[in-house]
Amino acid sequence: MTENPLHLLMNPQSIAIVGANNNPTKMGTVQALSILKDGYQGEVLLIHPTEKTVLGLKAYASPEDLPEVPDLAILIVPIKSIIPLIESFGKIGTKRAIIVTAGFRETGSAGQAIENELNNVARRYSLRFVGPNCLGVINSQISLNTTVLTVEHKPGFLGFASQSGTYVTQSLQVLRKRGFRFSKAISLGNEANINMVDALEYLGEDEQTKAIILYIEGIRDGKRFVEVARKITPRKPILAQYVGGSASGARAGMSHTGAMAGPDFLYDGIFKQAGIIRVHSVEDLYANGWTLATQPPLKGNRVGIMTNSGGPSTTIAYLCDSVGLHVPRFSDRLQKEIRSHIEPHASAANPVDLTFDVGIQKLAITLPEMMMKSGEIDALVLHGVMMTGYLRELYPHFKELAGNISLEEFLKYAQPVVNEAFELPRKYNIPFLISSFFDDEDCYTKGYMDNNIPVFRFPEKTASALGCLYRYKQIRARAPRKDAALPKIKKAAREIILRALDNKQKALDEYEAKQLLACYGVPVTKETRAAKVEDALRAAKKIGYPVALKTCSWEIMHKSGRGLIALNVENENQLKKEFKNIQKNAGKTVPVLVQDMLSGSREFLAGMTRFAGFGPGVVFGLGGVFTEVFKDTTLRLAPVTNADALEMFEDINARKLLNKFRGLPKVKLNNLSRIIQAIGNIALLHPEIAEIDLNPIIIDGTEPVVADALIVLEDKS
Amino acid sequence: MTENPLHLLMNPQSIAIVGANNNPTKMGTVQALSILKDGYQGEVLLIHPTEKTVLGLKAYASPEDLPEVPDLAILIVPIKSIIPLIESFGKIGTKRAIIVTAGFRETGSAGQAIENELNNVARRYSLRFVGPNCLGVINSQISLNTTVLTVEHKPGFLGFASQSGTYVTQSLQVLRKRGFRFSKAISLGNEANINMVDALEYLGEDEQTKAIILYIEGIRDGKRFVEVARKITPRKPILAQYVGGSASGARAGMSHTGAMAGPDFLYDGIFKQAGIIRVHSVEDLYANGWTLATQPPLKGNRVGIMTNSGGPSTTIAYLCDSVGLHVPRFSDRLQKEIRSHIEPHASAANPVDLTFDVGIQKLAITLPEMMMKSGEIDALVLHGVMMTGYLRELYPHFKELAGNISLEEFLKYAQPVVNEAFELPRKYNIPFLISSFFDDEDCYTKGYMDNNIPVFRFPEKTASALGCLYRYKQIRARAPRKDAALPKIKKAAREIILRALDNKQKALDEYEAKQLLACYGVPVTKETRAAKVEDALRAAKKIGYPVALKTCSWEIMHKSGRGLIALNVENENQLKKEFKNIQKNAGKTVPVLVQDMLSGSREFLAGMTRFAGFGPGVVFGLGGVFTEVFKDTTLRLAPVTNADALEMFEDINARKLLNKFRGLPKVKLNNLSRIIQAIGNIALLHPEIAEIDLNPIIIDGTEPVVADALIVLEDKS
Repeated sequence: MTENPLHLLMNPQSIAIVGANNNPTKMGTVQALSILKDGYQGEVLLIHPTEKTVLGLKAYASPEDLPEVPDLAILIVPIKSIIPLIESFGKIGTKRAIIVTAGFRETGSAGQAIENELNNVARRYSLRFVGPNCLGVINSQISLNTTVLTVEHKPGFLGFASQSGTYVTQSLQVLRKRGFRFSKAISLGNEANINMVDALEYLGEDEQTKAIILYIEGIRDGKRFVEVARKITPRKPILAQYVGGSASGARAGMSHTGAMAGPDFLYDGIFKQAGIIRVHSVEDLYANGWTLATQPPLKGNRVGIMTNSGGPSTTIAYLCDSVGLHVPRFSDRLQKEIRSHIEPHASAANPVDLTFDVGIQKLAITLPEMMMKSGEIDALVLHGVMMTGYLRELYPHFKELAGNISLEEFLKYAQPVVNEAFELPRKYNIPFLISSFFDDEDCYTKGYMDNNIPVFRFPEKTASALGCLYRYKQIRARAPRKDAALPKIKKAAREIILRALDNKQKALDEYEAKQLLACYGVPVTKETRAAKVEDALRAAKKIGYPVALKTCSWEIMHKSGRGLIALNVENENQLKKEFKNIQKNAGKTVPVLVQDMLSGSREFLAGMTRFAGFGPGVVFGLGGVFTEVFKDTTLRLAPVTNADALEMFEDINARKLLNKFRGLPKVKLNNLSRIIQAIGNIALLHPEIAEIDLNPIIIDGTEPVVADALIVLEDKS
Repeated sequence: MTENPLHLLMNPQSIAIVGANNNPTKMGTVQALSILKDGYQGEVLLIHPTEKTVLGLKAYASPEDLPEVPDLAILIVPIKSIIPLIESFGKIGTKRAIIVTAGFRETGSAGQAIENELNNVARRYSLRFVGPNCLGVINSQISLNTTVLTVEHKPGFLGFASQSGTYVTQSLQVLRKRGFRFSKAISLGNEANINMVDALEYLGEDEQTKAIILYIEGIRDGKRFVEVARKITPRKPILAQYVGGSASGARAGMSHTGAMAGPDFLYDGIFKQAGIIRVHSVEDLYANGWTLATQPPLKGNRVGIMTNSGGPSTTIAYLCDSVGLHVPRFSDRLQKEIRSHIEPHASAANPVDLTFDVGIQKLAITLPEMMMKSGEIDALVLHGVMMTGYLRELYPHFKELAGNISLEEFLKYAQPVVNEAFELPRKYNIPFLISSFFDDEDCYTKGYMDNNIPVFRFPEKTASALGCLYRYKQIRARAPRKDAALPKIKKAAREIILRALDNKQKALDEYEAKQLLACYGVPVTKETRAAKVEDALRAAKKIGYPVALKTCSWEIMHKSGRGLIALNVENENQLKKEFKNIQKNAGKTVPVLVQDMLSGSREFLAGMTRFAGFGPGVVFGLGGVFTEVFKDTTLRLAPVTNADALEMFEDINARKLLNKFRGLPKVKLNNLSRIIQAIGNIALLHPEIAEIDLNPIIIDGTEPVVADALIVLEDKS
């Protein structure tokens, strides 16, 4: 295995910066100052064509003039200088760079050409780089910060790979206020060279990183992304936000980092398959990521809620149900124990609500500890702890009464902070989340944050974070992935395709498609292709009435609603009539498929489409007439394992239809799974196939049978 | 119309407080200080049984000793003193009170008894009160604050009625930091006397209040709530958060304020019917409420995005699509105009992305103004404006370079704030939302907040607020509600019910149910009830084969899956066989319904259930076998208007099925609407009916026809 290019880039012994000068408003200067002032202990070398001294340090005229070969070059210069500089650094032996400069692929084809050339030059020197059009990296372990703003906090546990530079710069002070701290953060920019997948792999290997968050506008190497993520998620959680999947989002992303977005359901599917937890805001990305990075794993689904405020606790309880968690009523024993500590009108059942009582000991220690010890909860949420924040709010009212003392004097009335409050999650190995309206002007908010206990500004946010902990519990519980070996290519299947291609067909006809599917064990309707009515009559007799009749021609891909199908044909007379009818509606002589008429009332679909960079995507969902009404489908990349398929069955809203349902028996899920796996395999074995569409797959008793099939071939024209 | 009891309660000329003393840790003292120190100009009278002076003011021993009759009494005393005090205040002529004390209904039946007695005493003296178990009220117009914490801001526009006291106290400082300001706020507590609907009505009438927010754990007087809200929403937006609709939420709320929660779909339905916008977090309640209170109405769905950060703008663009809004690509003309102001690699298409550029003039004024003037947008979101916040972040890096100046000195490098930036929404009458990572340590964040332009901490939140603006645009566009007159009671319908009741039936049989429905014009299947097979054969001949056979007995309410139904009976022989079969499966001699076999493949349902306090709830949704699979239903309270019904059709996910669909014609929606209206009317006219369940309603061509009906009668036993 080759070493991940970010190992060296994130841990340079020496850095050369090009683009800093003595003008404090220049971005290059600002970024150089971040490196110089935030604690980085390595060598910093400044390059400037004319200045002798920059920011108080000796400046060198060019890379060639440097006294040593820097491990990393950072370029914040006009675009025309980028390629010559990379060439120079390549020549002297520098192997890593960060290119901040924008104006490449994201601006259109001319920029794309420069970006391609840049990559060619870099490749010539085995120089790997982050960017262009990025804001750099943060490695808190060695106090390296190449971004614009200040990182002044101690090292953290959250690894971040971002297709937006803003989320590792402008947001730094929000993160500091909220107590969230990066282990490593990488602004990826256009990913001309080092990309999202490299960053993900690096963060997966990084020991300091306990949870990984990803901000994604589009992934190019989707197949490798899934492979890499899949290896990480059983031992380290990954959260991702994807914002490319709407028309407006895709256009905005394209002009931002030139990201090629894909449809939302594609990303939804690959995230599920890889065990990545999807979130829908950058706040959740940070806060829920921090929760996963700091809290012990959730062992069950029982949440305890401790509060002095009915509103927040009711809200949290309400939302827990919606993320699969449960707020159990406590046992009589535990309630009795709690009751001895609270007012008679307060509730001990869970949520435990002290009502308006701001005493710290009971609220923050005694009762939470009692709940954690009880064995009746798997996670605890605490709302309402406050001390100096509360006093600050009271001060204007008490100032006069207290003899016009200053705020500082007044705050001395606060009781000393009880550090025991911050030890609970580690002591009992139970996730512990705080909801508070106070920022770090309150000593308890600050205490929790300093002790890596996540504090949420609004109560609803704790339920969202608990939902992520619970989802990760499920992901960790998944059996290790076993990819079955791909089957051998079936000669008969290959011949069907080659014959169709010879024939200049754009698709297989239904009969051919089903023959091909059958080669790979997919159950299909009994059927015969009949050119003449006599053949049809013979076939129907053999199959047994009732039968279905359909035109069978690759040129007629979509048959429904055009009089080209006759269902429930009961007898010979009806068959003759319908056969004629179909010929008439087709407007020419076409072969007719005589088909077993399946009677099941449950209809599903499965299909395959190829996505650039991702390979074949296999779709399963509700089929038949409801296909377009509910768009109830789910996707995985091929190869699809049996475990993947079983998860797909759980994904769809219509999942109840797969079970015993209104007198119908449970569907044989393993057989349905084999169909879905087969589609993925067929796509991998036969690159000539562009699309597969099996709809409906009718459940005949307990057996899924493909009743209609369309296989579209790659358009080589 | 009687005056709303909150008019006087919120605007007292004089207030008596019972429960304050000279101990600064007592809640009564703290609340008295809020009244005394936050600027209230009326008379404040303190009552204390023993102290002569409290908080530096003369204290009176009892209400009877007061020198004048206070308009409002505030009680923060042990529960045993509450009723005697209310009696005393009643006697001296005080007409309003706030009862903070807890321990009533929320604690169980003993507390409920005290609460009932309290209400009886108050009624005797026509004394109306808020509470018990509440934290009081805020009227920023007269600087009246009876809560625990400080309100120090200027009057606002947001009216709040809350079933949680925390949300009008603990959160006050968050609101201040975020620039959200109440007009009036009311902590309702147990609502023993003045309730949520009174508060809603009051806020609806209050001129200072421009938008209303409601935190709801359960509503008792649901019918009046909808009536009152419906009158307000055409001219003033209402947002509501409801948290009672899950098992955990309902239990938590019950022990909090004794609120009786109802199912989530009930509240969802009444909110829609009344034009109330539902939100799912208290943060959205505050922030989106503030947006609606301060921003001009949205005129269309086109959003402009101005930024220096690709991530936030891409995210906002992505989310706009999901709330029905559109981020249009700007015209070439406008793009050209914009392009002359930005870097060549920056995007002018919308989002307009300056890329990393913190120059205020272009970002905050020139380009936003250009976009607002263009006529190409209906709302504008701006992300990335920052000045002193940004400088604060740079300071640690620049400190030394700038000669070790202090932060204050360094901040003087900031350019003066350009107030033009804050005038845009008023100048162009276009909603304007700010996304910023900076709090009010940044002079622009502060400027926007001070000028009533909402600032959101994370970009996603702007899309949520825009979604509310857009939803309110739709609500305002609704035609004024016209309740049709209730039809007269049909004698025949009444007779069917009376006969069934005489007969001690718990339900009507299917035949009776449909006869009743038909009385009110509901189209039902052609059918005859047949006791003997000969009758059945005669009926089938008249109706025409194929027919359906079903048992017809009120004792067998649920027939499916038990061999009590035969569909598609084709001929006499089959009828005879199936008739016998049904008798066998029923286990006794039962009449059989011979029914027209409808052929439509689209099946819906409609129904009615009564909810305590709300009256009849009418449900419409997807029917047939998919009923339980998708639970795709929507609710309105009776009477249901035609406009209500048409909105219900838009609510369901399966709405496409109502239109032209796969060769099927568009359903006659007015006829379907008449069925739904009729169900509501029947429920209102016949209180003996407990439940109605019409499933399926089959679409026969374009016509909805009720194919199965269950009408359950009120259980009087």
